[in-house]
Amino acid sequence: MSNERELMVNNSEILKLKKEVYEANMLLYKYHLAIHTWGNVSGITNDRKYMIIKPSGVSYETLTPDHMVVVDLENNVIDSQYKPSSDTPTHTLLYKANKNIKGIVHTHSPFAVSFAQAGKEIPCLGTTHADNFFGSVPCTRELSDAEINGEYEYNTGLVIIEHFNNNNISFESTTATLVKEHGPFVWSIKNPIDAVNLALTLEEIAKMALYTKILNPDKKEANRTLQNKHHSRKHGPNAYYGQDK
Amino acid sequence: MSNERELMVNNSEILKLKKEVYEANMLLYKYHLAIHTWGNVSGITNDRKYMIIKPSGVSYETLTPDHMVVVDLENNVIDSQYKPSSDTPTHTLLYKANKNIKGIVHTHSPFAVSFAQAGKEIPCLGTTHADNFFGSVPCTRELSDAEINGEYEYNTGLVIIEHFNNNNISFESTTATLVKEHGPFVWSIKNPIDAVNLALTLEEIAKMALYTKILNPDKKEANRTLQNKHHSRKHGPNAYYGQDK
Amino acid sequence: MSNERELMVNNSEILKLKKEVYEANMLLYKYHLAIHTWGNVSGITNDRKYMIIKPSGVSYETLTPDHMVVVDLENNVIDSQYKPSSDTPTHTLLYKANKNIKGIVHTHSPFAVSFAQAGKEIPCLGTTHADNFFGSVPCTRELSDAEINGEYEYNTGLVIIEHFNNNNISFESTTATLVKEHGPFVWSIKNPIDAVNLALTLEEIAKMALYTKILNPDKKEANRTLQNKHHSRKHGPNAYYGQDK
Amino acid sequence: MSNERELMVNNSEILKLKKEVYEANMLLYKYHLAIHTWGNVSGITNDRKYMIIKPSGVSYETLTPDHMVVVDLENNVIDSQYKPSSDTPTHTLLYKANKNIKGIVHTHSPFAVSFAQAGKEIPCLGTTHADNFFGSVPCTRELSDAEINGEYEYNTGLVIIEHFNNNNISFESTTATLVKEHGPFVWSIKNPIDAVNLALTLEEIAKMALYTKILNPDKKEANRTLQNKHHSRKHGPNAYYGQDK
Repeated sequence: MSNERELMVNNSEILKLKKEVYEANMLLYKYHLAIHTWGNVSGITNDRKYMIIKPSGVSYETLTPDHMVVVDLENNVIDSQYKPSSDTPTHTLLYKANKNIKGIVHTHSPFAVSFAQAGKEIPCLGTTHADNFFGSVPCTRELSDAEINGEYEYNTGLVIIEHFNNNNISFESTTATLVKEHGPFVWSIKNPIDAVNLALTLEEIAKMALYTKILNPDKKEANRTLQNKHHSRKHGPNAYYGQDK
Repeated sequence: MSNERELMVNNSEILKLKKEVYEANMLLYKYHLAIHTWGNVSGITNDRKYMIIKPSGVSYETLTPDHMVVVDLENNVIDSQYKPSSDTPTHTLLYKANKNIKGIVHTHSPFAVSFAQAGKEIPCLGTTHADNFFGSVPCTRELSDAEINGEYEYNTGLVIIEHFNNNNISFESTTATLVKEHGPFVWSIKNPIDAVNLALTLEEIAKMALYTKILNPDKKEANRTLQNKHHSRKHGPNAYYGQDK
Repeated sequence: MSNERELMVNNSEILKLKKEVYEANMLLYKYHLAIHTWGNVSGITNDRKYMIIKPSGVSYETLTPDHMVVVDLENNVIDSQYKPSSDTPTHTLLYKANKNIKGIVHTHSPFAVSFAQAGKEIPCLGTTHADNFFGSVPCTRELSDAEINGEYEYNTGLVIIEHFNNNNISFESTTATLVKEHGPFVWSIKNPIDAVNLALTLEEIAKMALYTKILNPDKKEANRTLQNKHHSRKHGPNAYYGQDK
Repeated sequence: MSNERELMVNNSEILKLKKEVYEANMLLYKYHLAIHTWGNVSGITNDRKYMIIKPSGVSYETLTPDHMVVVDLENNVIDSQYKPSSDTPTHTLLYKANKNIKGIVHTHSPFAVSFAQAGKEIPCLGTTHADNFFGSVPCTRELSDAEINGEYEYNTGLVIIEHFNNNNISFESTTATLVKEHGPFVWSIKNPIDAVNLALTLEEIAKMALYTKILNPDKKEANRTLQNKHHSRKHGPNAYYGQDK
């Protein structure tokens, strides 16, 4: 592995991505989506051979770009004296499951975690949600005891993929999920910073959904036509929000 | 349109209003009423021919007065390389509906959005509300599928106007509304900064109304005499709050 | 009144108290107990002839000690070009009702207001409350229409005094009340800064009481022996909290 | 006691621990776990002869390392002109009850206090909780009137120890408790700073548990296998979270 290691050390794409993944992790902290050493963000190289991720259990106050860990998609550490986030096998599996995913975030943000603990999806109750995530943000099934006692983090990824596949949910349109009794995973088809922005959005819509439930416990999802309109204003071929087109 | 454009570039009223609308948009961010690029504030020229509004999808951290977009009240961009907020047709319609409106704000602030998602008006439960908004802050009906698939943002304005007219609600006294399954629009008969201040007030009274509902689910609106007293302390011919008289 | 005015301008007690009342008002803002121009704090001279209070409707961001208004206890302005807070008659009446009150605060802090809007007292549910306020923080009756349409702010004071007298509540031990459908008034037997500290405490215990109600809707007040123990640890002849004795 | 006092003044372990306990107390304030003078943190010397704790009722804004008070485990002040926290006898009793406790924190953080006021334990509803505390965070019984009127703070410690012993709860794995109608005590088997970090974690999981209850009032504790997995990822012989192993 030492040849591979040498290739990495001075690789300009790797250096740039380390900085970007570092900045995305710090944004997680700035947005108050993580306390202590909680949460982690990863990114992937263009050839989809290497993932860069936050090291395990290092405080945000001492984190630097050099701490970021390069692993291959089989979770082997390539270029670091640090151990990668313990959630690494969940990240790599998601990158392998969908070629369009460019960045992944895991947080313990309180409103999103509360839906995960309640074992409930976040229904699309209005345009704030529809602008950003297509349909409900799903909640996976519980892992079995065997899945927990086996390759736990890898199996967490499997359960997410199973849920999306079984329910025909698109990873590109619904870029977040809750893992039951655990918390949110959020991804972006653009880059790691965008994934963190979506993690903040998820927390905001989880908060709104909880407040809405207090005000109107029987409220069902928003009008489907309205959901589609708002999603297509921002995404897809006829998007007209923002300065890009 | 190039003559009109030249008139705009050095027009001192336009330059002043661009700065004011910029500052009002930044206040939205400072008050934590908007995350990411969400929310928008507009103002109108004294002759009510031109509206100035935030560009679509530009981050608050990079926003400058020069980004502000001048449009006429038919939503034609006059002087900008930027696209105006996608909510522009809602703003222009409200300015045309009521000649006293001087500034308009749209936010996705979480407590107010939660009432909109629940499809419920915010009842006037106490003096904090009555000091600022006369009677309930209403919630419009849902848009029909045809209205959503047609000129959506224009129709959003129509539904607001329909609700105020059908229910004899005064745009001058009740300076805010919720659009069902969407969120709040707030306006001011003074200026754009005042509209943002009212948007913060709306979020505060929505928070108080939700907490009150938790404490006393059957609570009805406050004593009408108390509502009238507090509104007239701050507004109308016999106002005695503040230093103005 | 001009002689009285001259006496005031260079009076060192007045100058000192203006600074103290100014600082107490700014603390209200620092603690996030007030937005915009909401809320007000007052103090009283040692001879209990003059009250100093925040001017009406002036923004905290522009406030200075010179803005503070001196009034006599009949609400006549002695030394200021500014109008005093519109709540002035409530403050002066409370100072007259109890000779031990040294500072008074009125806020619209959201948790305390929510109890006032719900028309409910804040029960003493634990030691955090008992350390600071003896027994429930009461909620007054509604004012009658005649009281609202008459000398409203003066009558607000009367209703507070009526509630404390009719229920044998001590102004010295229970240093706060809620006015129904309005909000909290808090006072101190020490000074205006202490009154603001108690207003923050009130907001904190109101928050805790609301959360407790969510967790256990039928929870009754805490053990009376525990309430008495905690109150007497901090107050009264055998107090042993702090460095004073 | 003057010989003992002299030994203390220049003792380098004491000086270092005073600084550490001071920093832990300031962290309590930085994390917004305490307002005013509320809350206190203590540490213990390696020989477990002396405890260092915050003085009673001193404001965080004026606190310095020199304010920290050295007491022996019988609560005698050794080296200070300040009175120690009134909760001192609870702290010393816990240090004597378990030789592995290295730091103790008492707060009035609002979500944790709300569970204490409701008289309810915090169930382990997900991995955020399981990562940090083994099983429910318990809530003690109420103290009897005799216990309250007797050596109240000492008896508070006794009730905690009684609860842990009667229910076979490990002080090393479940490093926090709620005292009914009072609030949380949190400890660390590492050091005082870690105890404060756990107090922040406790507040975060209390918040999540309350939100979860709103979303799903009948939710039971998380899968026990998942709880054990997450606790052992971070603690115990096979821990693989962080950089330590």
